[in-house]
Amino acid sequence: MALNIERSCEVAVVGAGLAGLRAATALAEAGVDTVVVEARARVGGRTCTERLPVGGFIDHGGQWVSAGQPRIEALATGLGVTLFPTWDDGKTVDWRAGRRRTYTGMLADPDPAAEAEVAAAAARLHEMAATVPLDAPWDAPQAADWDGISLHQWLADNVGAPAARAVLARAIEGVFCQGPGRTSLLAALFWAHSGDPLTPFVAPGTAPDRRFDGGAAQLCEAMAARLGGDRVILRVPVAAIEHRQHGMRVLGPQLAVSCRRVIVTVPLPLAARIRYLPALPAARDHLTQRTPMGWIIKVHCTYAERFWREDGLSGQVTTDGGVVSVCADNSPASGSPAILVGFIEGAAARRMAAAPAAERRAAVLADLGRYFGPRAARPEAYYEYLWGDDEFARGAEGGYWTQGIWTAYGPALRAPVGALHWAGTETSPTWYGKMEGAIRSGERAAAEVRGLSAEPVRDPGP
Amino acid sequence: MALNIERSCEVAVVGAGLAGLRAATALAEAGVDTVVVEARARVGGRTCTERLPVGGFIDHGGQWVSAGQPRIEALATGLGVTLFPTWDDGKTVDWRAGRRRTYTGMLADPDPAAEAEVAAAAARLHEMAATVPLDAPWDAPQAADWDGISLHQWLADNVGAPAARAVLARAIEGVFCQGPGRTSLLAALFWAHSGDPLTPFVAPGTAPDRRFDGGAAQLCEAMAARLGGDRVILRVPVAAIEHRQHGMRVLGPQLAVSCRRVIVTVPLPLAARIRYLPALPAARDHLTQRTPMGWIIKVHCTYAERFWREDGLSGQVTTDGGVVSVCADNSPASGSPAILVGFIEGAAARRMAAAPAAERRAAVLADLGRYFGPRAARPEAYYEYLWGDDEFARGAEGGYWTQGIWTAYGPALRAPVGALHWAGTETSPTWYGKMEGAIRSGERAAAEVRGLSAEPVRDPGP
Repeated sequence: MALNIERSCEVAVVGAGLAGLRAATALAEAGVDTVVVEARARVGGRTCTERLPVGGFIDHGGQWVSAGQPRIEALATGLGVTLFPTWDDGKTVDWRAGRRRTYTGMLADPDPAAEAEVAAAAARLHEMAATVPLDAPWDAPQAADWDGISLHQWLADNVGAPAARAVLARAIEGVFCQGPGRTSLLAALFWAHSGDPLTPFVAPGTAPDRRFDGGAAQLCEAMAARLGGDRVILRVPVAAIEHRQHGMRVLGPQLAVSCRRVIVTVPLPLAARIRYLPALPAARDHLTQRTPMGWIIKVHCTYAERFWREDGLSGQVTTDGGVVSVCADNSPASGSPAILVGFIEGAAARRMAAAPAAERRAAVLADLGRYFGPRAARPEAYYEYLWGDDEFARGAEGGYWTQGIWTAYGPALRAPVGALHWAGTETSPTWYGKMEGAIRSGERAAAEVRGLSAEPVRDPGP
Repeated sequence: MALNIERSCEVAVVGAGLAGLRAATALAEAGVDTVVVEARARVGGRTCTERLPVGGFIDHGGQWVSAGQPRIEALATGLGVTLFPTWDDGKTVDWRAGRRRTYTGMLADPDPAAEAEVAAAAARLHEMAATVPLDAPWDAPQAADWDGISLHQWLADNVGAPAARAVLARAIEGVFCQGPGRTSLLAALFWAHSGDPLTPFVAPGTAPDRRFDGGAAQLCEAMAARLGGDRVILRVPVAAIEHRQHGMRVLGPQLAVSCRRVIVTVPLPLAARIRYLPALPAARDHLTQRTPMGWIIKVHCTYAERFWREDGLSGQVTTDGGVVSVCADNSPASGSPAILVGFIEGAAARRMAAAPAAERRAAVLADLGRYFGPRAARPEAYYEYLWGDDEFARGAEGGYWTQGIWTAYGPALRAPVGALHWAGTETSPTWYGKMEGAIRSGERAAAEVRGLSAEPVRDPGP
């Protein structure tokens, strides 16, 4: 229990993901002495790239970039990391009631009335979302009403066609990995405004459409390399943060970093697990008790060939069953090795995470076989990442907000507590839950720490 | 950072509240070498008694005992602690739309139709609740449906009179301190079955009706004294628990307790803040991200005389405003000193906890003055306990369950993880959230640790 590492700096950053390393980089560039403390043996946080023995790579975590995300583009350019278009041309497979079909467009069963309903509801949700201030959703004119009902209730009351409802619910809520618990309408509108996830259905072509050549974790790896090895301390889970008038200390097993300010970048439920001395105000503490993580298992299969393209398929699916509910062609820019990615989400993830690994693999391969034919069930290699079991992620892309949380506790999300500052994608007004949001939150926290006002919040997209 | 305390025992118990000390006592009586580790400087957990300089006492935490709670009665008898009837005779004050009235019975505006509706709905809820297995609510025949809607939705759909709805919502949900977030119907039915909170409205006279002469914390104080000082280690917040095949260790600042089994008795969101090595299965971890604590501020005022009794008042109120939403005559058995207790709950607690102490006190006294006349606004002394700010409670009586949590994560509530066992009132099938539930959970965990099967779950009440 002797202290092996004692350090002193101006700013300590907890977490070496995109938010933490972007904050540390911005501070270092401004001449501020900064140290990053990371629990894992790697940097990257919820981005995580594995290099394959056959060449190529897979992203176990965040991977997609959308139009309207300038900060991640600028960061990548500065670090020499390039983007390439995702492989998304071709038909979608629909598996429903035990029957397989392929289609293009919005719905497997073309239904102009339902599609018009989606467009009309999306337009209306857009209008409503535009009234939600991104930096203070609780100040929306109808905040109390909207936070008191669920998105699903609004859809049930306002959208007739079940297919239209399903498309809209999926567009807004899908990325947060399906509860349990119903997303508040206010939270859904905030997300829609923050990241514009409805746009793909209104204006195809603006969906997440690019990936990093070589993997998303390169961003963090390159930032850490530029900071220098002694600036990023790995394998130290922070246990406590003392934040007293006369000074601050970040404490972990065998570590004490003395500093003047701290930026905590980890997801909200994990920020709750650090002990703060003195204890935090109740509102901040209660917020972190109420914004849980979703649950996702991300699986990849590699093949000698992209056989699905021979059938004119994109690699994407819609389905009413199985364990893999989302698929895509995740091959690298060169097209080789051939890679399919699948997502097991929500209830299916809860069920399958507890199953033996062989059973989980068999269920995934059975699904892929159903969707893409028998060759899909015989990959060269199978990879999986159980984000719920990752002690330092405990879920998936982002925390989610059920009814009443934004209006009761929203103001505690980002407000510094003395010299304690909060970052991470969940604190970003724009692109909440996305890599772009994480980077913006790091830039905002760095500016906050330096006493500069953060950049004004801007609406994403055109 | 040197280790000051190293201990070795068979069973380590985390938390010296009713659950932890009852478990430790049961184990000690069976000859099992047991050590209790407590974060606070006192025992008692969510019971907390303050002795007054003028004589008498106040209970800042749990205090009421109901009929049908045999375990707490037996414990008190064994420890020589006696119960006395609460002071609840007299009229209730109703403050509504700025108007004060007094009344007896269920409703301030006598309304036989609404009262009949309460009785009918309570009977129906009772019937539904009876189908919810107390040890496995997720196995109720209609579990998925009931966990998918809120209690409020069911009341809106099934109870016409707003006054009747309010009485029922309050009876079931009030004790869990009003969110934010809607209680799932399944959770409400489980509570009703677990503790029978509806009974008072169906059969007056079975409401919580007794208190401990000298205060509820005496139970824990006496148990700790009998265990012996060296068995209860105070002022050590547990930071980590190693639970490995070759042995377990409970670790805190300057403490390491080596043992063979551990019983964790702290509330769910606080159990999440202990680091487990190895990390817990995702389902257990996710559960603890999703069962937050309510928020309560409990205030007491002492007076020379119980002047409200001169007006024929019981000390109880119903109100549509103000910050104090629940009141009672909390005088000791002797009637002196005269004491009123008030509860600030939910949204009011969130607002008032952030206010300056003087403003909070003024708001409380203004309410008491409105309810009980000008003398109530001039107490001899004013006391308050902000449970949301208590680092080792962070809320109120018990964690609450919003939609979808029981069915998704319920099985992880009580299931041991290897040699890690879970207790605390939130783990009790009967009298969840009550002192009786805490005691039962301690007894169950002690039996579990000793390899005995726990007592079968019994329905409370007649």
